Amino acid sequence: MIYADNAASTAMSETACKVMMKYLNECYANPSSLHRAGCDAAKVLFEARQTIAECICARPREIFFTSGGSESDNQAVLSAAAAGRRSGKMHIISTAVEHHAVLNTLEKLAGEGFDVQLLEVDQNGSVSPQQVEKAIREDTCLVSVMYANNEIGTVMPVREIGAVCRRKGVLFHTDAVQAAGHIPINVIDDNIDMLSISAHKFHGPKGTGVLYARKGVMLESLINGGAQERGKRAGTENVPAIAAMAAALKECCDEMQNSTQYVCALRDKLISGISAIAQSTLNGDLKKRLPGSVSFCFEGIEGESLLLLLDKQGICASSGSACTSGSLEPSHVLLAIGRSRSLAKSSLRLSLSRYNTPQQADQIIKAVTQAVMQLRTSDC
Amino acid sequence: MIYADNAASTAMSETACKVMMKYLNECYANPSSLHRAGCDAAKVLFEARQTIAECICARPREIFFTSGGSESDNQAVLSAAAAGRRSGKMHIISTAVEHHAVLNTLEKLAGEGFDVQLLEVDQNGSVSPQQVEKAIREDTCLVSVMYANNEIGTVMPVREIGAVCRRKGVLFHTDAVQAAGHIPINVIDDNIDMLSISAHKFHGPKGTGVLYARKGVMLESLINGGAQERGKRAGTENVPAIAAMAAALKECCDEMQNSTQYVCALRDKLISGISAIAQSTLNGDLKKRLPGSVSFCFEGIEGESLLLLLDKQGICASSGSACTSGSLEPSHVLLAIGRSRSLAKSSLRLSLSRYNTPQQADQIIKAVTQAVMQLRTSDC
Repeated sequence: MIYADNAASTAMSETACKVMMKYLNECYANPSSLHRAGCDAAKVLFEARQTIAECICARPREIFFTSGGSESDNQAVLSAAAAGRRSGKMHIISTAVEHHAVLNTLEKLAGEGFDVQLLEVDQNGSVSPQQVEKAIREDTCLVSVMYANNEIGTVMPVREIGAVCRRKGVLFHTDAVQAAGHIPINVIDDNIDMLSISAHKFHGPKGTGVLYARKGVMLESLINGGAQERGKRAGTENVPAIAAMAAALKECCDEMQNSTQYVCALRDKLISGISAIAQSTLNGDLKKRLPGSVSFCFEGIEGESLLLLLDKQGICASSGSACTSGSLEPSHVLLAIGRSRSLAKSSLRLSLSRYNTPQQADQIIKAVTQAVMQLRTSDC
Repeated sequence: MIYADNAASTAMSETACKVMMKYLNECYANPSSLHRAGCDAAKVLFEARQTIAECICARPREIFFTSGGSESDNQAVLSAAAAGRRSGKMHIISTAVEHHAVLNTLEKLAGEGFDVQLLEVDQNGSVSPQQVEKAIREDTCLVSVMYANNEIGTVMPVREIGAVCRRKGVLFHTDAVQAAGHIPINVIDDNIDMLSISAHKFHGPKGTGVLYARKGVMLESLINGGAQERGKRAGTENVPAIAAMAAALKECCDEMQNSTQYVCALRDKLISGISAIAQSTLNGDLKKRLPGSVSFCFEGIEGESLLLLLDKQGICASSGSACTSGSLEPSHVLLAIGRSRSLAKSSLRLSLSRYNTPQQADQIIKAVTQAVMQLRTSDC
């Protein structure tokens, strides 16, 4: 099997897996318990928080553990909205290409009276700091722009957008689910107030994530109950998964330079090979792009049929976001960058990791080329 | 170490641990992905849902996976409240001894205009179906009564309360976090509309749980985004943990008769041994009681000092709920059953599992007896 769907979910790294198994076996006490076993669990939690904070240049107190990226996105957006409601600021700026965890939360807020403005993106799927600056109003309570797009891999000018928001005194949230562990993140230099992370996108376990909230940002609790996470997220902390997430993120950050070089080379090999297919269009920015992200549209074919043919050859890929797969609607991201509805339905996303090889890239290029040809011929 | 804090969290069973490790290693694809690896993950999810449904006599479509008991409680209560708001029914009935995941959510709703009525409990910590019947009004949108109490182990007359609610046409939610896997649950016979479960309370992993919602009950989504869990809970499904939860619950249910007998014998041994200590008071119902639950108050001592002494001897116990440990307030449950503030602060909870032994029970009795004596002497 060639697994090229890392934007949907990743295999756990050996390091993360070992940590997880160790604590699944050894560290089962509740970290809120006062006895030795509880204190040991609390210590694991403490260290994981520290490790993750260091990876993004945050302070441990600014790290809140959640069940994953979607929860983090929901909590960030709803927290800013609650603060906005209190101060009569009901305008929210985001983009047309966000993940549905942000978009659907914004839709809900729009139903509650918020004025939600989704910025249009350019042909590469990016928004500019100038667009954000122009959109900010007196009553803007939040700007939420993703760090990097999950479908087409475009990396946004987050640092510059953050600077605009900081200057204007508007809260800035970024969904960094695809970015964390893959490109450097520095919440201070990037002027970020809130940031969402999901462990299973960087070779950590499913079911855990982080919401970073800069000191001074008021979080609303999405899940009420016990006083875990300083009262901002109730529920027994998922210690083994959190420790594994910290190990996975640290590993990614420690090895980022090498693995970026390696994965980018694979990606560029794929892009160059697939570009040779007639009537193929690369989606996303050629340069400001996640290391592992490849996205194409192929005129005249159905993306799902292409996936099936690739799957038959043992290649795991996707048409876009896993969260919307099976949906009959074309991708909102591809429509936003100007693809027609029919072209948007012909998309193929290949997302690579450090576990992929050049040989696999060759196999993928060959398989995609043949499959596209086959589909175009069979249509005749 | 003698681990007697199973109400706070449990060690994973070997079976559950094996399942978890297998899928952590093998089943990393996103179950929403359309390729083979994704379908394999979806199949694991499908089977886990079926297994869990069977354990509580539900249908698979009525099982919604969450991140744990607190999230399930929040979603259940908020869903009923949302329905109530739509139909002008703003009265909610619950009890004074619920977990804070329910109580704090109700408090939030009270702040939003809901009329929240917390039923008083009797000296054993129970409410009666008659109390519930009397409290139900035309505008009652929810009755939420826990299946069994986390601090004192009292099992509520859920079936009879459910019958009252069904007859009156009021939604009935029960927090079964302490009950699931330990006593038989049958959502049909028990007349339950919504039920919360947490895996790490029955030797499954942390970070996953279930909200059962009877067909026809409208759930509100707490976390918006992807269409997972039939649109009611966004976020990539935590497949390895969910599969391990299913394995753990099935194991508990399959072995329930034997393990109940075994654990009840340990519990009764402890209760009888500790009752011999002068001025000790058992908390909770002697008969309608969770198999592993022991709770005492000891006049004239501080519960935290007792815990420290026990901890020194390697015995992991708690004063009450782990979620509120470290709090200076006496337990709301012990106050509700009529303990004075000072007596409530002298509490000790020992919660046993099938992994405890009669020898451990003997050691615990000896250690508790000595520690209480020591504390009382040092006070003189």
